[in-house]
Amino acid sequence: MTRKLHATDTILVSLAAALILFLVGVLPLAAQEVLPSWNDTAAKSRITAFVKATVTEGGEGYVAPQDRIAVFDNDGTLWCEQPYYIQLGFMLDRVKTLAPQHPEWKTKEPFKSILDGDLKGIAKGGEMGIVELGMATHAGMTTDQFNTIVSDWFAAAKHPKTGKLYTEMTYLPMRELLDYLRANGFATYIVSGGGVEFMRPVTEKLYGIPPQQVVGSTIATQYAIVGDVPVLKRMPKVDFVDDGPGKPVGIHKFIGRKPIFVAGNSDGDYEMLRWTTAAKGPGFAMIVHHTDGDREYAYDRQSSVGKLDKALDEAERRNWLVVDMKNDWKKVFAFDQ
Amino acid sequence: MTRKLHATDTILVSLAAALILFLVGVLPLAAQEVLPSWNDTAAKSRITAFVKATVTEGGEGYVAPQDRIAVFDNDGTLWCEQPYYIQLGFMLDRVKTLAPQHPEWKTKEPFKSILDGDLKGIAKGGEMGIVELGMATHAGMTTDQFNTIVSDWFAAAKHPKTGKLYTEMTYLPMRELLDYLRANGFATYIVSGGGVEFMRPVTEKLYGIPPQQVVGSTIATQYAIVGDVPVLKRMPKVDFVDDGPGKPVGIHKFIGRKPIFVAGNSDGDYEMLRWTTAAKGPGFAMIVHHTDGDREYAYDRQSSVGKLDKALDEAERRNWLVVDMKNDWKKVFAFDQ
Repeated sequence: MTRKLHATDTILVSLAAALILFLVGVLPLAAQEVLPSWNDTAAKSRITAFVKATVTEGGEGYVAPQDRIAVFDNDGTLWCEQPYYIQLGFMLDRVKTLAPQHPEWKTKEPFKSILDGDLKGIAKGGEMGIVELGMATHAGMTTDQFNTIVSDWFAAAKHPKTGKLYTEMTYLPMRELLDYLRANGFATYIVSGGGVEFMRPVTEKLYGIPPQQVVGSTIATQYAIVGDVPVLKRMPKVDFVDDGPGKPVGIHKFIGRKPIFVAGNSDGDYEMLRWTTAAKGPGFAMIVHHTDGDREYAYDRQSSVGKLDKALDEAERRNWLVVDMKNDWKKVFAFDQ
Repeated sequence: MTRKLHATDTILVSLAAALILFLVGVLPLAAQEVLPSWNDTAAKSRITAFVKATVTEGGEGYVAPQDRIAVFDNDGTLWCEQPYYIQLGFMLDRVKTLAPQHPEWKTKEPFKSILDGDLKGIAKGGEMGIVELGMATHAGMTTDQFNTIVSDWFAAAKHPKTGKLYTEMTYLPMRELLDYLRANGFATYIVSGGGVEFMRPVTEKLYGIPPQQVVGSTIATQYAIVGDVPVLKRMPKVDFVDDGPGKPVGIHKFIGRKPIFVAGNSDGDYEMLRWTTAAKGPGFAMIVHHTDGDREYAYDRQSSVGKLDKALDEAERRNWLVVDMKNDWKKVFAFDQ
């Protein structure tokens, strides 16, 4: 059990120890392919080049960790928004569930059309009809109760075309992008026109994004004591619409920092794209372009949901990356073959 | 350069290495006294007992890291609010700076009283006068411009009694408490009636709390393009008042999670204290009681600023810790001898 130890042995042992420490620290990242569901096209290269620059200390693209804020639209950017917003799917199901308590809905729009299964009829009520629909399905309960209603709904509700759970309708390449950004020190946020309290119950599980990093539209809530227990009641009143010019407002209000990375897919993200890329210093904007009618849906300028027109026109001159879902993504959904 | 290496040597080397790793990991915490500016009274014991329970896996007080949310009022809880709120000090200075552009202020309240140095006269204008004062000093510029105005003001503005910079008027024991909570995996937030954009430029430096963890009152902002550059304009309109029953509303809106630790000092924090300690599972609430007229100010039930009455009455039966600044704190400010 004895042998001679030479100085070179000591050095070798030290080197081995250093190597082990190095490998333990580096291997998990190096061994794993970056953005595996992305094809090796210019889109992927532009994203990885930007991220590498932000983490390269001393380089001109370097960004300190606390300023690595990335914001993502949700509908059509992280999950599917066709044939209608998932939150509209929730409203439709809620109307059916609540209908027995509302006999007047049998003759009142937009409820009548929903109960008759006439989706096109819903639009006839116009914007006021949609607001009324939202209030009827989203208000009148406590925040805790609403959280339970939403969580229960997501556990079972399925997409009308694919038959998959809505929670399976997230874009795999975008989830990889979120992971990749976080692995490089970015804080990832959702900035969506959707309701904050509709998204928060599922964002951590779906995207690794905790409730406090979800910015969205809000309904007014009111503090009340019910049987000596403090609750927040959801009131039938819109508090904030986080869409279009509301998105930079929401980012500033909730986050208080300018993002350096932004992803959207429609003209509702236009102002957020401008806001992020107008700042001095590094800034990266990308648009998810829905070009894949086989694996998902193909739509842009003419679509009523997720219309992409002005932002697409200006993308090139503003140096915004347009991601072509059909050509840039190996898979759209995790369940794709 | 050679010697014999025995098995026992190898074991010793391994043990030494393990010891070094252990010390490197543990010493910084162990060697450093917890909450050094707190006296060894029941207040300190109750705080440390709660925190130890939250991090003890398997114990009934254990709380998963993502749920360790701690919220702090700011005025009178983290920094001095006497003889008037620091933000009012900012308003007074802004009126003096802007007066040359507003000749009408010479005869119009509350501006006239401010310019005449008659602080008591300001109150005569009532609540509307204060709102007008706020809008005149906080709106009409972009968010970037306001950020600069606030940062510049904090760099030089001094407390009227101590002559110290306002940024030195933070409570040392509370800063230690913030550090202690973070060292134990808590995320620390400010939830204040003060303006979000008045606090965010300094909270990271003063408290280690980044902008996105500051909840407060907000003014309406509007997206606009000025010379092809997107900006947010601050409008003369209150968007949200984060005080009293507004605090649980603000916590829910911005954070979306119930805190398990809350600190306040006035009846404006009452609802937030209720909200935090009514939740199932562990919850800790504390009230900073201003009892030290020598080192700071002594005030509670009769004070117009930071009135503490109802919350003090209910503290004992709700098991809220009342911290006695005079007896529980070794130092109030870092500059105390």
